Amino acid sequence: MGYTLTEKIIMRNTKRSSVTPGELLNVNVDRVMVHDIFAPFVVEKFREMGFEKVWNPDKIVFVYDHLVPTSFIEDFRHHKIADAFAAEQHIKAVHRADGVCHQLMPELRYVVPGQVVFGTDSHTTTYGAIGSFSTGIGYTEMAAIFGTGQLWIKVPPTLKFTINGELPKGVYSKDIILRILGDIGADGGTYKALEFGGSTIKGLSISSRMTLSNMAVEAGAKVGVIEPDEKTFAFSGVEGSQFQDLKSDPDASYEKVFNYDASTFKPVVACPSNVDNISDVEALLGSKIDQGFIGSCTNGRFEDLEVAAKILKGRKIAPFTKLIVTPASRSIYAEAAKAGIIGILVEAGAIMNPPACGLCCGRSGGIVSDGERVIATNNRNFLGRMGSPKSEIFLASPATVAAAALEGKIVDPRKYL
Amino acid sequence: MGYTLTEKIIMRNTKRSSVTPGELLNVNVDRVMVHDIFAPFVVEKFREMGFEKVWNPDKIVFVYDHLVPTSFIEDFRHHKIADAFAAEQHIKAVHRADGVCHQLMPELRYVVPGQVVFGTDSHTTTYGAIGSFSTGIGYTEMAAIFGTGQLWIKVPPTLKFTINGELPKGVYSKDIILRILGDIGADGGTYKALEFGGSTIKGLSISSRMTLSNMAVEAGAKVGVIEPDEKTFAFSGVEGSQFQDLKSDPDASYEKVFNYDASTFKPVVACPSNVDNISDVEALLGSKIDQGFIGSCTNGRFEDLEVAAKILKGRKIAPFTKLIVTPASRSIYAEAAKAGIIGILVEAGAIMNPPACGLCCGRSGGIVSDGERVIATNNRNFLGRMGSPKSEIFLASPATVAAAALEGKIVDPRKYL
Repeated sequence: MGYTLTEKIIMRNTKRSSVTPGELLNVNVDRVMVHDIFAPFVVEKFREMGFEKVWNPDKIVFVYDHLVPTSFIEDFRHHKIADAFAAEQHIKAVHRADGVCHQLMPELRYVVPGQVVFGTDSHTTTYGAIGSFSTGIGYTEMAAIFGTGQLWIKVPPTLKFTINGELPKGVYSKDIILRILGDIGADGGTYKALEFGGSTIKGLSISSRMTLSNMAVEAGAKVGVIEPDEKTFAFSGVEGSQFQDLKSDPDASYEKVFNYDASTFKPVVACPSNVDNISDVEALLGSKIDQGFIGSCTNGRFEDLEVAAKILKGRKIAPFTKLIVTPASRSIYAEAAKAGIIGILVEAGAIMNPPACGLCCGRSGGIVSDGERVIATNNRNFLGRMGSPKSEIFLASPATVAAAALEGKIVDPRKYL
Repeated sequence: MGYTLTEKIIMRNTKRSSVTPGELLNVNVDRVMVHDIFAPFVVEKFREMGFEKVWNPDKIVFVYDHLVPTSFIEDFRHHKIADAFAAEQHIKAVHRADGVCHQLMPELRYVVPGQVVFGTDSHTTTYGAIGSFSTGIGYTEMAAIFGTGQLWIKVPPTLKFTINGELPKGVYSKDIILRILGDIGADGGTYKALEFGGSTIKGLSISSRMTLSNMAVEAGAKVGVIEPDEKTFAFSGVEGSQFQDLKSDPDASYEKVFNYDASTFKPVVACPSNVDNISDVEALLGSKIDQGFIGSCTNGRFEDLEVAAKILKGRKIAPFTKLIVTPASRSIYAEAAKAGIIGILVEAGAIMNPPACGLCCGRSGGIVSDGERVIATNNRNFLGRMGSPKSEIFLASPATVAAAALEGKIVDPRKYL
């Protein structure tokens, strides 16, 4: 009997020759990420549990991104506590304003294919895009890993999504994952592994694949994995020959297999206020929009800014419409600046925020007021996510958001491509 | 008997052949600026006073800058009230996220030489740099102008500052105004006009001159004026021949004249927590700094970002040190992006904020915590100005701030120039 990619990663980690969905077992943690919001709680729990030294300071990454730049006097307290703990424990990987954690972890190669990684944030699933088992945990579990280097998991069953063919113009990986969420529902993947494959996925950039894995958790999934290939190995700077086990066997056992023809995908939008409330963009044409947001760990990468700039170049966003743009990392920001993209976005009327979590987590950088309607590239449109619970959030691809910002209403992005 | 530049502007406006310091008279307002914080209060007072129509919608400029991007759910209420009033009153000049009001007013030529202009913000004195009489007023006075187009003023006596010669390397207009503030004190110009002249001032760019006029109010001055010249006329897009009256007469009567030799100026710093607590940078070498801030209506212009980039290019800011950079306007941001400056700043580790008032007015974008020490290019180092009242703020030129950010302590900027 064969195994799925997710099972293979767990077997590789635990040095076992077989695993079964539902089985509970301990994994050896390859890397952990703690962001600034949870750092003080992890440190407090670590002390409460009686630990004195972390199991391996080189496997811990602190990222200050949710409270950057500081919006409240108390914000810096989180950074000071994490800084002091890092100094005490000889943790060297501390990123103070370098970008969103889920972008930095794969970009800076803290995560590479085949690893088991945990983070104190639900969108830790992102690194499944490079063939790792990565998922979000609470701060108590994280404190236990800090002390022991281990965590128990339940082997998840896998839902396989096979997508073949060429995506139509104006359709992006964001449209793929939104449609899948619409099809299976926001609880359709609870404690399961989602696995994305097929020629369409092979054809996606690593950035686009990260969008899929990032939003796997929006179906409740434990992980959202993609088989690593030459693109992955190049991105991660590793020798592919060492990772030949990281593929699903032809006779792997899936809980369910979904087959999609890429040509059937369209630009879609998740309507308020659930990620699985999916509509074709065509059914929403003309819906008024007050603010656009392009950014986050879902869609704040170079290719996302690039497509937005393509649409916005030489144009102006609509009167009374705001467009907030937040690159996902410092290096993406610098690269976009060099490529002329930042200048184009600013001239079009965008408000450029520094690379951090600000607006997506509802802390700063464009907080939404009562009655406002937002179209955004991030991953959650829950009530109050970006400010007032009396606002409405639509989720879409960067192209769809950029096009909407130009007209102050939802439009078909293909008219600008 | 001759007249000062300030008196000449008032005479031009009132069509009088003489004015005397201390005299009360009504001026005809050429332009007003209201920013987002005060817009709702101006509108409310306007209605309370029984007015129905503004005296001239083309002379009113709304700038949304203090609450941009929105940091709180309530922020947008200010914009909505101003938007509704602008629509009702046919006010077309509404800038929703284009930059800091005091940069936009002269940059977009809402103010030109010889005009009398009021704004609901103390740093409205900035436009004195292009030879206008401009000053900050309260929202009740502004509501009265909205209804009548007039306001009374008391003709201020003038303190003349004549600076001749070439500034030493590493010394900028910020160092000039800080030294002057140190010399005359934070109350040394109360309800007076400051006039800056001499060959050194003639040699300054319009941007550098704006730094002087901007901080005139820090001495309590009503205005801070500079005689318009060819640079001014080019900047403002006006014919110089129409403004030949805008110069002080040789026999003008000054309350006091201060003569400075430019070669005696040095890089200086205003120490916590008063703008007139001036020290040579050399006396502060090694003082620990947690955060730098380059931006604001005082020093957020292209030349300010340019000198910072010159110092930061190819270098990294010190560990544990933050550097916040906020261009003063959208066009400065776009120009700096095109010139490669934004990329340099981001690569050096700067946190790039969008063009707005954020950190300078203590609302967002790098709020300072207890015990932190900030070195900043803006205009006020009062207790709690940028966050916690238990923090300390040092004011300096962009070069001095950039150099300090590189080392995490106050250093002589000349070592990097």
